[in-house]
Amino acid sequence: MRAVVMRDRKLVVDALPDPTPAPGQVLARVLACGICGSDLHALSHGDRMVEMSRLSADPSMPVSPEVMDLGRDVVMGHEFCCEVLEVGENVGNSKPGDVVVSIPLLFGPQGLSPLGYSNIAPGGYGELMLLSDVLSMKVPNGLDPHHAALTEPMAVGLHAVRKSHAKAGTSAVVIGCGPVGLAVIAALRLEGVEHIVAADFSPRRRSLATTMGATEVVDPRQEPVMEAWRRVDGRRRVVLFECVGVPGMLDQAILDAPRSSQVVVVGVCMEPDTIRPMIAVAKEVNLQFVLGYDPTEFGETLRRIAEGELDVAPMVTGTVDLDGVPGAFDELADPEAHAKILVVPA
Amino acid sequence: MRAVVMRDRKLVVDALPDPTPAPGQVLARVLACGICGSDLHALSHGDRMVEMSRLSADPSMPVSPEVMDLGRDVVMGHEFCCEVLEVGENVGNSKPGDVVVSIPLLFGPQGLSPLGYSNIAPGGYGELMLLSDVLSMKVPNGLDPHHAALTEPMAVGLHAVRKSHAKAGTSAVVIGCGPVGLAVIAALRLEGVEHIVAADFSPRRRSLATTMGATEVVDPRQEPVMEAWRRVDGRRRVVLFECVGVPGMLDQAILDAPRSSQVVVVGVCMEPDTIRPMIAVAKEVNLQFVLGYDPTEFGETLRRIAEGELDVAPMVTGTVDLDGVPGAFDELADPEAHAKILVVPA
Repeated sequence: MRAVVMRDRKLVVDALPDPTPAPGQVLARVLACGICGSDLHALSHGDRMVEMSRLSADPSMPVSPEVMDLGRDVVMGHEFCCEVLEVGENVGNSKPGDVVVSIPLLFGPQGLSPLGYSNIAPGGYGELMLLSDVLSMKVPNGLDPHHAALTEPMAVGLHAVRKSHAKAGTSAVVIGCGPVGLAVIAALRLEGVEHIVAADFSPRRRSLATTMGATEVVDPRQEPVMEAWRRVDGRRRVVLFECVGVPGMLDQAILDAPRSSQVVVVGVCMEPDTIRPMIAVAKEVNLQFVLGYDPTEFGETLRRIAEGELDVAPMVTGTVDLDGVPGAFDELADPEAHAKILVVPA
Repeated sequence: MRAVVMRDRKLVVDALPDPTPAPGQVLARVLACGICGSDLHALSHGDRMVEMSRLSADPSMPVSPEVMDLGRDVVMGHEFCCEVLEVGENVGNSKPGDVVVSIPLLFGPQGLSPLGYSNIAPGGYGELMLLSDVLSMKVPNGLDPHHAALTEPMAVGLHAVRKSHAKAGTSAVVIGCGPVGLAVIAALRLEGVEHIVAADFSPRRRSLATTMGATEVVDPRQEPVMEAWRRVDGRRRVVLFECVGVPGMLDQAILDAPRSSQVVVVGVCMEPDTIRPMIAVAKEVNLQFVLGYDPTEFGETLRRIAEGELDVAPMVTGTVDLDGVPGAFDELADPEAHAKILVVPA
């Protein structure tokens, strides 16, 4: 099969052997796969990502997922929608022809692999991939696979909101309106949060934030986001969602947070970061770091998209074939140009 | 009156005018006042403390407490037990002869002053102080004022535990067994937390930790605290209490925390501190910063001490008169020498 391979810190399009399904696995054809900011990180700061994966391993857990070796090939891509081509032994859920999504984990003879960050199992930036039958979810309602592929990033938003204190009756401030911030905004709207104040430097991202459900958007160069929040609400309990993930944002969020409020850290800062704990102590701030989603949140997000509660069409700002992936990585550096680019291998 | 004054970054014993109670205030004689680690911080890093107080002011709050000016005199001491000498106008709660404690706040004609960190209202390192009648609580059961003075630091422990996820059925790890860590340990024991694993380099502090309720104590040079926790428990949900408050401890606690666990930050780190957010993200750590207590927790702590549920006698390792305070500040630098030193002005 053809695939985009991360090799020696570069993306190259190459021919790889077709994968073969082990028991409990299915072989699937990739219909669409979103490019995630984490993949951009992995390409530029892969060593740090690997180091962090090792450091965050929990010796209490029975199974540790594979940690990729950057010296070997990796096919990235963890926001996929696929068509099942053939099934391995002991498969009872999926059948050929099914259009499916899955949380990006693969159970296999060599253990648990994170799809998209694995040397064993290829991710969605290729023509074919393996999925675990038990984790595959059939896409309902004839939903467009290009929209089903957004299940994964949108589930990140639902999870962040569910792990937070934000609910109907509270208000929310979303810092950064890239795909992660937009997913948080959409989830906040569906949870019934009335005031959703979002900040981004990019006019296009602010416009998308409004489309996805923000009730107030600000350019932080024009008005500090907390002033905007005080202008439109300022009374309800507020939860801040940090969706940028670069050094300094966390300290600023702590400085911005009202007394006893929560800061949800959704943006993934790969570098060491400095905060002033005394300010957090003085205000009794709660910092909730979040990652991913659980299978229930993933399934609920798929249902919301399929039933039309959550319109992800505005998020998709481009599609590329496999040869277009390296160029798409470059284009995603410009927040005005794109939100989500889909890779369509066929 | 005589008092220990923080003046030009030094402690000096001097004569000050006797304070006069405004309406709603009482004049009280200090019977005992504990020396707190924050006072040691204030003497050595006062500017940073003032800066942090200003930065953590919340523009949403109706009243901001006074922020001390280090260019003017401050009488520190916020862990006091007093005898009421005379009452101002509009006082209905206290009467002369009452032995009382109070949360260290004073309402006055010039606003709200933090007792012990104020240029307006003297703290407990002096012969006399003013208290707000509505905040004063009568010490019950003929409790020794030297033990009643421990209400404030022990309430810090109760508050930290109540703000945390620790409860019966969970386990706890306490990092640092100074007065704050010991207060947390005592509160955990009273909440019914079965396994309380505490770490400190000092043998004396480890011994005190056992006395106050730790079920396992470790010297972190001999055995990492999380290994000790895994040895004695390792199965229950665990909450980590960071009670040291120096740079680097927070990052270590994040590294130590099992997946989805909570780190409660009770130690007050006055300096900027560096963490690796990616590790916290990967494990979905919750960081709860805490400070102080509410009046209910303060009152409950007083009741626990007065009714014998909480024996604070082992915490008191020394008493000094006013002239002994500067020397006591020096002695407290040695964790083997002391836990809590009481100032007894009379």
